[in-house]
Amino acid sequence: MESNAHRREFRTIALIGKYQSRDVAEALSTLADFLRERGHTVLIEQGTAGATGTAGYQVASLDEIGSRADLAIVLGGDGTMLNTARRIAGHEVPLLGVNQGRLGFMTDIPRGHMLEKVVDVLEGRYEEEGRLMLDAEVLRCGERVFRNAALNDVVLNKGDLGRMIEFQVRVDGEYLYNLRSDGLIVCTPTGSTAYALSANGPILHPSVPGIGMVPLCPHALSNRPITVGDGCVIEITLVRPHDARVHCDGQARFDVHGGDILHITRSQHRVILLHPPGYSYFHMLREKLHWSDAPKKH
Amino acid sequence: MESNAHRREFRTIALIGKYQSRDVAEALSTLADFLRERGHTVLIEQGTAGATGTAGYQVASLDEIGSRADLAIVLGGDGTMLNTARRIAGHEVPLLGVNQGRLGFMTDIPRGHMLEKVVDVLEGRYEEEGRLMLDAEVLRCGERVFRNAALNDVVLNKGDLGRMIEFQVRVDGEYLYNLRSDGLIVCTPTGSTAYALSANGPILHPSVPGIGMVPLCPHALSNRPITVGDGCVIEITLVRPHDARVHCDGQARFDVHGGDILHITRSQHRVILLHPPGYSYFHMLREKLHWSDAPKKH
Amino acid sequence: MESNAHRREFRTIALIGKYQSRDVAEALSTLADFLRERGHTVLIEQGTAGATGTAGYQVASLDEIGSRADLAIVLGGDGTMLNTARRIAGHEVPLLGVNQGRLGFMTDIPRGHMLEKVVDVLEGRYEEEGRLMLDAEVLRCGERVFRNAALNDVVLNKGDLGRMIEFQVRVDGEYLYNLRSDGLIVCTPTGSTAYALSANGPILHPSVPGIGMVPLCPHALSNRPITVGDGCVIEITLVRPHDARVHCDGQARFDVHGGDILHITRSQHRVILLHPPGYSYFHMLREKLHWSDAPKKH
Amino acid sequence: MESNAHRREFRTIALIGKYQSRDVAEALSTLADFLRERGHTVLIEQGTAGATGTAGYQVASLDEIGSRADLAIVLGGDGTMLNTARRIAGHEVPLLGVNQGRLGFMTDIPRGHMLEKVVDVLEGRYEEEGRLMLDAEVLRCGERVFRNAALNDVVLNKGDLGRMIEFQVRVDGEYLYNLRSDGLIVCTPTGSTAYALSANGPILHPSVPGIGMVPLCPHALSNRPITVGDGCVIEITLVRPHDARVHCDGQARFDVHGGDILHITRSQHRVILLHPPGYSYFHMLREKLHWSDAPKKH
Repeated sequence: MESNAHRREFRTIALIGKYQSRDVAEALSTLADFLRERGHTVLIEQGTAGATGTAGYQVASLDEIGSRADLAIVLGGDGTMLNTARRIAGHEVPLLGVNQGRLGFMTDIPRGHMLEKVVDVLEGRYEEEGRLMLDAEVLRCGERVFRNAALNDVVLNKGDLGRMIEFQVRVDGEYLYNLRSDGLIVCTPTGSTAYALSANGPILHPSVPGIGMVPLCPHALSNRPITVGDGCVIEITLVRPHDARVHCDGQARFDVHGGDILHITRSQHRVILLHPPGYSYFHMLREKLHWSDAPKKH
Repeated sequence: MESNAHRREFRTIALIGKYQSRDVAEALSTLADFLRERGHTVLIEQGTAGATGTAGYQVASLDEIGSRADLAIVLGGDGTMLNTARRIAGHEVPLLGVNQGRLGFMTDIPRGHMLEKVVDVLEGRYEEEGRLMLDAEVLRCGERVFRNAALNDVVLNKGDLGRMIEFQVRVDGEYLYNLRSDGLIVCTPTGSTAYALSANGPILHPSVPGIGMVPLCPHALSNRPITVGDGCVIEITLVRPHDARVHCDGQARFDVHGGDILHITRSQHRVILLHPPGYSYFHMLREKLHWSDAPKKH
Repeated sequence: MESNAHRREFRTIALIGKYQSRDVAEALSTLADFLRERGHTVLIEQGTAGATGTAGYQVASLDEIGSRADLAIVLGGDGTMLNTARRIAGHEVPLLGVNQGRLGFMTDIPRGHMLEKVVDVLEGRYEEEGRLMLDAEVLRCGERVFRNAALNDVVLNKGDLGRMIEFQVRVDGEYLYNLRSDGLIVCTPTGSTAYALSANGPILHPSVPGIGMVPLCPHALSNRPITVGDGCVIEITLVRPHDARVHCDGQARFDVHGGDILHITRSQHRVILLHPPGYSYFHMLREKLHWSDAPKKH
Repeated sequence: MESNAHRREFRTIALIGKYQSRDVAEALSTLADFLRERGHTVLIEQGTAGATGTAGYQVASLDEIGSRADLAIVLGGDGTMLNTARRIAGHEVPLLGVNQGRLGFMTDIPRGHMLEKVVDVLEGRYEEEGRLMLDAEVLRCGERVFRNAALNDVVLNKGDLGRMIEFQVRVDGEYLYNLRSDGLIVCTPTGSTAYALSANGPILHPSVPGIGMVPLCPHALSNRPITVGDGCVIEITLVRPHDARVHCDGQARFDVHGGDILHITRSQHRVILLHPPGYSYFHMLREKLHWSDAPKKH
């Protein structure tokens, strides 16, 4: 966690709700009214405004939010956070997540404590945490044909045919392996507790500057997940005649063909998460993974 | 890898052989003669001198080697490297490993190319790599009763009785979990390809500043390995009435009892490995793990 | 292994080559001539005849082979064996596999010893082994819309969208679980060394009358593969609104929708494999999985 | 489950409590009085009588219970069931488990429903299930030096020194592999949900006639658990100069040395478990493993 000695000022605050969900309408309107009363300029993300029917506030696209907002409060789950993060990545607008269902890994304010925790943050009682993102691009015959960002993971997996694919992986230009498998998950520490974990990947604490590479059903039984430094350039070349698919955070996808190269690097932008007092990464882990969390006496 | 712009000077060179092994006698004597002829001062580690019967050279303890040598050449396997590293850790004498059997993860000079590769290094053609080590200490009623270093791992495991143990883990003072298991491996990136890998831990590239925590047969099936930053303080408290054992690199061990606290931090010293030209970490991985290593055409 | 006290008579022998492959032409023609000379009636599978250009022999469909042949010799790999087994399952024609590349799990005669091993079998020196197969059918609104057999596995996995699917599993009518995952592999002992093994499933020796159920990237980290008795009825209901795909041996596939029920039972037919002298299941395992196979002295 | 057409008669009923535990005193006395009133002859296991101070009933050793009782009711956890099963194995006295803490895999009557469920059983409303046991013996220079039974597992693991051991495994005389590892778990279906599960072994439904072999931290990363038929003879020879330890159900243990042979076969006796109405193996699994168990609507 970084210190927040230079307290941020939150003049303009954007509210972003879960995609096409009416459920957040009430919380959204409560929050918007509350913020306006405290003198903040409130922006409602345009899709959210449409889905919830919230009126009386400025409506803004994610792009506008990126350039105008001092803070974006996300009402939803991790999926909404991921989408917001990927779309406004270039602006490093700090994000604050209010959970709308089960506790999320990133939306750490419980719905029932929304206003109280938001006040904490507005008054400077928060910790600020930078999370690394990945940039993914696909090169075909030397041309870039796809580009996107990911806060969780870039996944290459078998496409429609459902057959094992083969690809070659290089790290900083050095040959790592040819992998025959269902695919490969390249994840950030944030993503290490998402899809990668189901595929037997290791948990990376967000403070570790590493990128995880987790194979999906590898043909070679001795294959294992590997974590490389976050400054590495990862280059994955799909072997002909395989077809496959690239997914960014499970939200953007692109079809790739034999010979295509998937380039993955750390993004130059980070996602800034704000955590109100009481946040604990390990507590979240225990809750989500159902680890025993009762410290026994001894 | 770090640049070696400031080329080291190797005036005094120590030779260390595999523990109580006569097998290295010939290679050792070849190498000692060769180095003396080139004008270097040669030290033979005293146990090595005894086991091999090498005569005509200065004999030195590992402590003396630590304080006098500019370079230590290890003839043996990874076990010899680990022991040497742990014992001369405070001095940061660079280590060069000549393998005496199967390729080692750390002894990357094959026996058949010994002189040629040693010359490369002596003439400055090498890469220098720092590997993090761990400091382990056991606190009992506030007193330190054990202290040692580890280049691979500090392992807490069940002792004689062979029953599951329980312990509480804190990271930087924050509660992580109570774990009931056969034990816990706390490993460096170097150790991530050793015992931890057999226990389903993730591979950490040596450039990742992380420490792996890999449970041994955890009772909670949702438990998973986790990698934390290498600046963390890891504190493991054995729950009463369990007894257990602490191992450093599988070489030093100590019995612990309920209430004892095992403290693990990054050592302030690093192990300096020198790699002659042609070294590749990934190549070593493929060789040792029998991954497919033939880059296919595409 | 069952005894073969009642020695089979092999009057009519069918030859089946790898799909659309010319590579087997020479071996095929050598074998056909050899068998004709010994007085056997030789049938060439029609696709094989087309691909290899073999002339001068009776050409037969797989159906005809099923009803007419006393023995089918497959020249190819495990894929060819799987396809043949699935297609002539109802007839229990014994199969003998001649390998055309890397050693197969089922094609245990090496190419270089073809004639000699075939003679062994023709003269009664073989072991006969029955392998269980699965019957899969999909029920939609009470109607059967798909049916196929599998010697390796029936796989339900996420379809085009690439999102996690959810389904409910019942075994003999009893509720097992709702699983959110990338899918589920239901495998025979034969299939336990195929795809299921990459997904961390257990190896089942062919003599164990069990069916393995191996989840693909399960969301619940405590989920584990489970083996049930081979007399069980497995019923998998896809939860709405998920779409998914069913694969039999990775060769036949079918799209399923929310509400569809996938019914899996042991087939009433078995695949009969003939093994010439020297066959060892464990030897095959060691070879294919690169386990250490040198019995050490002790 | 087997039918219980030939209803058993339960004249003499033994009560066995958790080892050296006073906690079961009240339940024990309630149950003993209740059974005496219904006209049954009640035996109290002698250790249980001592620990709980229960008076006024016949006290019997486990051996006597084996030869005299028609039913043994165990008040404790799985550990008490395991110990009872191993000790009275030769007599096939049916066992009924009343749980005294967390739900057990084998003690399926919750404490709060004890009398009502016991009545169900006494009146013939139960299912009877046979569970296979293992016989383990150690041969040293041709002499048998240890013999015991196991309902869960026979474990060979590294002893005091804490170093990897090596052993050779044969199944029905056929060479399987030389394994270098922390050890090997050989488990029954009953034991597949115990220690073996923590070591990544597969769950075997109790109806599957198989024996699981699950390596502990195997050195060869491609090694996997394997299930063989329950009629197999498993022979494990410890390679010199390794020392190791054999455990039966984690309760009996024996030190073995290089050259010793551990022989494991299915016991000729089975454990007979009685389950009152409402018992479900899968329900137990979900409860113990925290799998999602809410059947979703669809």
